[in-house]
Amino acid sequence: MDQKQRGILIVFSGFSGSGKGTVMKELMNRYEEYYALSISATTRQPRDGEADGREYFFKTRKEFEKMIEKNELIEYALYVENYYGTPKAYVEEQLEAGKDVILEIEIQGALKIKELFPDTLLMFVTPPDAATLKERLIGRGTEPIDVVNARLSRAFEESLGVEAYDYLIVNDALDVCVEEVHSIIRNEHQKVSRNQEFINRIKEELKGFSKGE
Amino acid sequence: MDQKQRGILIVFSGFSGSGKGTVMKELMNRYEEYYALSISATTRQPRDGEADGREYFFKTRKEFEKMIEKNELIEYALYVENYYGTPKAYVEEQLEAGKDVILEIEIQGALKIKELFPDTLLMFVTPPDAATLKERLIGRGTEPIDVVNARLSRAFEESLGVEAYDYLIVNDALDVCVEEVHSIIRNEHQKVSRNQEFINRIKEELKGFSKGE
Repeated sequence: MDQKQRGILIVFSGFSGSGKGTVMKELMNRYEEYYALSISATTRQPRDGEADGREYFFKTRKEFEKMIEKNELIEYALYVENYYGTPKAYVEEQLEAGKDVILEIEIQGALKIKELFPDTLLMFVTPPDAATLKERLIGRGTEPIDVVNARLSRAFEESLGVEAYDYLIVNDALDVCVEEVHSIIRNEHQKVSRNQEFINRIKEELKGFSKGE
Repeated sequence: MDQKQRGILIVFSGFSGSGKGTVMKELMNRYEEYYALSISATTRQPRDGEADGREYFFKTRKEFEKMIEKNELIEYALYVENYYGTPKAYVEEQLEAGKDVILEIEIQGALKIKELFPDTLLMFVTPPDAATLKERLIGRGTEPIDVVNARLSRAFEESLGVEAYDYLIVNDALDVCVEEVHSIIRNEHQKVSRNQEFINRIKEELKGFSKGE
């Protein structure tokens, strides 16, 4: 609304198997000019097809701990013996430039971010039901059944935190889902709380008129 | 999202001269199937072109006070010696049927509604700046200049309450404005807080899977 409105910090989470990665990729394809996707740093090993600086910044434990020490991370967490964290500089820079910055992080990190920055927009992606989630996890064909079951257990634990999020995105059809996410974020810019400058200006103007200026 | 989701109660306010009436009319023209427009009851005299049961239910003071007595109004207020109020039965019925019910009311009533029903969605329509508002009020050509000035004073008072609203809608181009309003309301249905049933269901399903069912 006002040209100089600061970007919105957005956390995008969802069950493993919810398709949130695909939604993000497609959102960036379609609306690259609106968003900046924050890339996490991690000490976990790259999987096949993952590249440093694209999926993650892959760091050694020593490098990561140096980033913690130098206060270069917005938040970080230890998860299954690996560190995951959000580098600070990039996020600040992009928000300042008016871009909406998306963090694709776990629920644990999401709650930390919300506490630090209460005006963060939290979105949670879910399949239409748990059976669909299970099918998708099995359908990947890349994981043995006990890994699938571990992920379903993890999904149950994650589901207990959904109430902390602002919006629930049901990923039934990719195209619809991407447009919904984009639309929710665009609308978020019209929140009264994000337009205090505009409101102050029009108040001043009306005050002038009401004095007969 | 869930078929049976209850409708959302929406308050639509704005400065006199913001064009909110036109926005509402156009919203109803385009998306009649989504919305029910609540019609207020009032004791003020009908203006030229206003019809009973369309702009307002026009009531005598005695009739209105009987409605108050019988608890048939959600809220009511006295404004410039006339009563204005929102009849209860119609609103309840439409929300239950899943329609989003729009109340086009003054800020005073809006705040009462929000207090009674905290999940009401409050939208405030404003022109892009106060000069545009003044031009529109003068441009109507129906009001002497002292009435225009009284309205500008009133607009200033109203602007002091804008922070209580959820969304700010800048009515610069009617077409854009109507689509924004519709989009904000559609997205509101995806709020986590409005999908507790869906969340409870998927939690139960995941709980079952995580037990190996």
